[in-house]
Amino acid sequence: MGSEAGRRLNLDTINQHVRAAKYAVRGELAVKSEEYRLALAKGATDLPFKQVISANIGNPQQLDQKPITFFRQVLSLLENPQLLDKPDVLVNELGYKPDVLERARKLLKAVGSVGAYSASNGAPAIRQSVAEFLERRDGFPARWEDIYLSAGASSGVNTLLHIICKDSSSGVLVPIPQYPLYTASLSVLDAQCVPYYLEEHKNWGTDVSAIRSSYDKAVADGIDVRAIVIINPGNPTGASLPESDIRAVLDFAREKRLVVIADEVYQTNVFVGEFISFKRTLRRLQQEQPGAYDAVELASLHSVSKGMVGECGHRGGYFELVGFDPAVQNEIYKFVSIMLCAPVIGQCLVDLMVNPPRPGDPSYDQYRAEYDAIYRGLHERATALHKAFEQMEGVECGAPQGSMYLFPTIRLPPKAAEAAAAEGRTPDEFYCMRLLEATGVCVVPGSGFGQKEGTLHFRTTFLAPGTEWVGSIVKFHREFMDKYR
Amino acid sequence: MGSEAGRRLNLDTINQHVRAAKYAVRGELAVKSEEYRLALAKGATDLPFKQVISANIGNPQQLDQKPITFFRQVLSLLENPQLLDKPDVLVNELGYKPDVLERARKLLKAVGSVGAYSASNGAPAIRQSVAEFLERRDGFPARWEDIYLSAGASSGVNTLLHIICKDSSSGVLVPIPQYPLYTASLSVLDAQCVPYYLEEHKNWGTDVSAIRSSYDKAVADGIDVRAIVIINPGNPTGASLPESDIRAVLDFAREKRLVVIADEVYQTNVFVGEFISFKRTLRRLQQEQPGAYDAVELASLHSVSKGMVGECGHRGGYFELVGFDPAVQNEIYKFVSIMLCAPVIGQCLVDLMVNPPRPGDPSYDQYRAEYDAIYRGLHERATALHKAFEQMEGVECGAPQGSMYLFPTIRLPPKAAEAAAAEGRTPDEFYCMRLLEATGVCVVPGSGFGQKEGTLHFRTTFLAPGTEWVGSIVKFHREFMDKYR
Repeated sequence: MGSEAGRRLNLDTINQHVRAAKYAVRGELAVKSEEYRLALAKGATDLPFKQVISANIGNPQQLDQKPITFFRQVLSLLENPQLLDKPDVLVNELGYKPDVLERARKLLKAVGSVGAYSASNGAPAIRQSVAEFLERRDGFPARWEDIYLSAGASSGVNTLLHIICKDSSSGVLVPIPQYPLYTASLSVLDAQCVPYYLEEHKNWGTDVSAIRSSYDKAVADGIDVRAIVIINPGNPTGASLPESDIRAVLDFAREKRLVVIADEVYQTNVFVGEFISFKRTLRRLQQEQPGAYDAVELASLHSVSKGMVGECGHRGGYFELVGFDPAVQNEIYKFVSIMLCAPVIGQCLVDLMVNPPRPGDPSYDQYRAEYDAIYRGLHERATALHKAFEQMEGVECGAPQGSMYLFPTIRLPPKAAEAAAAEGRTPDEFYCMRLLEATGVCVVPGSGFGQKEGTLHFRTTFLAPGTEWVGSIVKFHREFMDKYR
Repeated sequence: MGSEAGRRLNLDTINQHVRAAKYAVRGELAVKSEEYRLALAKGATDLPFKQVISANIGNPQQLDQKPITFFRQVLSLLENPQLLDKPDVLVNELGYKPDVLERARKLLKAVGSVGAYSASNGAPAIRQSVAEFLERRDGFPARWEDIYLSAGASSGVNTLLHIICKDSSSGVLVPIPQYPLYTASLSVLDAQCVPYYLEEHKNWGTDVSAIRSSYDKAVADGIDVRAIVIINPGNPTGASLPESDIRAVLDFAREKRLVVIADEVYQTNVFVGEFISFKRTLRRLQQEQPGAYDAVELASLHSVSKGMVGECGHRGGYFELVGFDPAVQNEIYKFVSIMLCAPVIGQCLVDLMVNPPRPGDPSYDQYRAEYDAIYRGLHERATALHKAFEQMEGVECGAPQGSMYLFPTIRLPPKAAEAAAAEGRTPDEFYCMRLLEATGVCVVPGSGFGQKEGTLHFRTTFLAPGTEWVGSIVKFHREFMDKYR
């Protein structure tokens, strides 16, 4: 006692489900990149690069994306409502348009103070705003009582998985490659991730026969498969699902009584095709075959973190429940109550996202111009990065479709795999670590998202501005291939 | 299939640990009070009261507490940094002092944009600010690497319990009466709450002999008791622990190898005695007996939600770890990474809380005046409410000591207990429901916090302004006692 040995907690005595969880997006590479960033800030000159490019995480405003002016003007008034006592100064000297003041007054009426707790599932007036947005988007009714405001979509996913997973035999179908939130949360919950592979050769499309075979295998292994996660548009793949795929997934969910978790946070990051929501498709199926789909339970999520909003630091989001038992919704309410409520200023940002200035509003022209410029910028950067990948030996990458990521396949020489093994790393981890050391560009090894046996990938965002960093990847890759040839 | 019966989720098929969790602070009474509030807003005239007083939850700004001007001015600039391009307008026309602009610039340098993710455990510069605050407060060094910024203290508690609880035999000592966050979180985790009773006759003090007997009983029952929670100052009791009690708890923790979770969110809400931190006391013990306390693991939590700050809607907080294994800290980092980071504007508010204007700063006088007025107002309201309780038959309540709550004992006539049983309620639930229906005042039945067999209490905040609501409680109580006499 009294010595270090007397500690209660060590790696073997803590919760082993937490220990087993993996979260590569912020793993060893991310930590090392932050060390480099700090060293550069302190004036280090012994590194072969002058800046760190954090292409490992979809963090738009850390890179180049500017916040939407209308949104931030409103938020500034919510934080300091006393400014509303000087409308002339706001309008004449600070360039705030009258609709900024009007929206701030409306939101303050809805929440009281952004420093006060809201209802556990969010301010009713903002949930009403979300419901109206969903009606406009989908052409079907939405009920504000079924909207739950959350601290980003991650917190909503955490809530849903907590309710759905009953014990260690509970399983959830998760697309591979996937965003590690799902595997990590399931690991912490001691529930089973049931992976299903996306079809890389079909632009990472979703194939129900692959889902079915994963499901059958899991059931044969004694897993009680309860839900299916669909990320649409895909992360890390960017693929937007056609309506026929969504229908096929809903059919399968109906057949197997699976709760559908539709992660739709990239719904505005679409370059190819169009975003079609699970909610709209479900309602259409219900129209076409009355009664047949009434028991399908759908939870769909969205957030302020991605898209042209890009406000992930504000931790705002929501999920909508369709077809859920009201008694289960009461339990969800109780569960979210334990953490009290989502950040209220983030809730207000959800309101702004779903209800932005409309044509004719004083702030509309500027909003539209900013929004379109961000969209164009993302598309241009994605295209430039894709072009660079096309030049690289052993690298294959589908054309950018959406989200904020590219997820190229890389084929590395056997010697590279040997060198990786000698370091105790997978070849993709080895490659990404050397890339970071040589260029300051931080990407995520594909193994962090799961991948098919024998294939290698990495995920990179296309958020960073400029082309220099893209050139540095091309140069690194050539040297790497030469070295291990 | 295809019918309601085909749903996957119902009360029996969801996670039963979530179902078993109780969270009275936002339970049936709170929901009913919101219904009344909505009815009144829609013009209802058939209720025996004109407003709902939410005395069930420590939500300062929902009631009367105004935000601190300096804080909100800085936050408004963080939300809209373009305002910093017009310093003359800010200073001359909007009354912003130069230190407001300076702090905003400093924080923007620290976080980049409040719309960007920070490091998973918070922006390093803000963690540094917290460490410096702890050094000033305690007179002992603090390391910024040991500070974790969280979405309110609740999220920090959730993290700590996730790491500490290994399986369903893991137990945590929790004070009774307690804040239901602890019991609810342990229930969700399927771990064991090991209750220890506070000493009501000693102003709800903490008695190590009571802790020891709870511990012994739990161990005899096969529970692996791993940690002890201390809420200081107490919620719902308001008691501030003397240093001798803190030492006794730390001794016990050392003896039994218990992680100490010191919930210190009410550290500035102290009317009687003084707040003494667990960290300071631990460091003193380590000075007095070198080596003897090195293995004690302490996690202490604070937040922006309470005190004179009262910004609970912003979900800001932190915890400091002392004596933890670095490998365990890495696991904590990974765990918090899954939810990405605490809201960045809330992180900035933590910086403002721990580093407010100092004497000589341009904003100091106003800050001090606002802070002191809030403190005085809380003390006056607590005293008025306490006086009212002293007049009420069968009600006993110690003098207000701190936090935001009073927790009176009530003795109800046997007929009231019978009427409660007929409704399927505990007597305190029955009493609180009748109180809400008659007066619009929402309080929390003591059973929501746990209480000794055969005793009845309720918890009320003393945040609401005015004396009318206090009078309405007195009148209700008299009529209730007359009815069931």
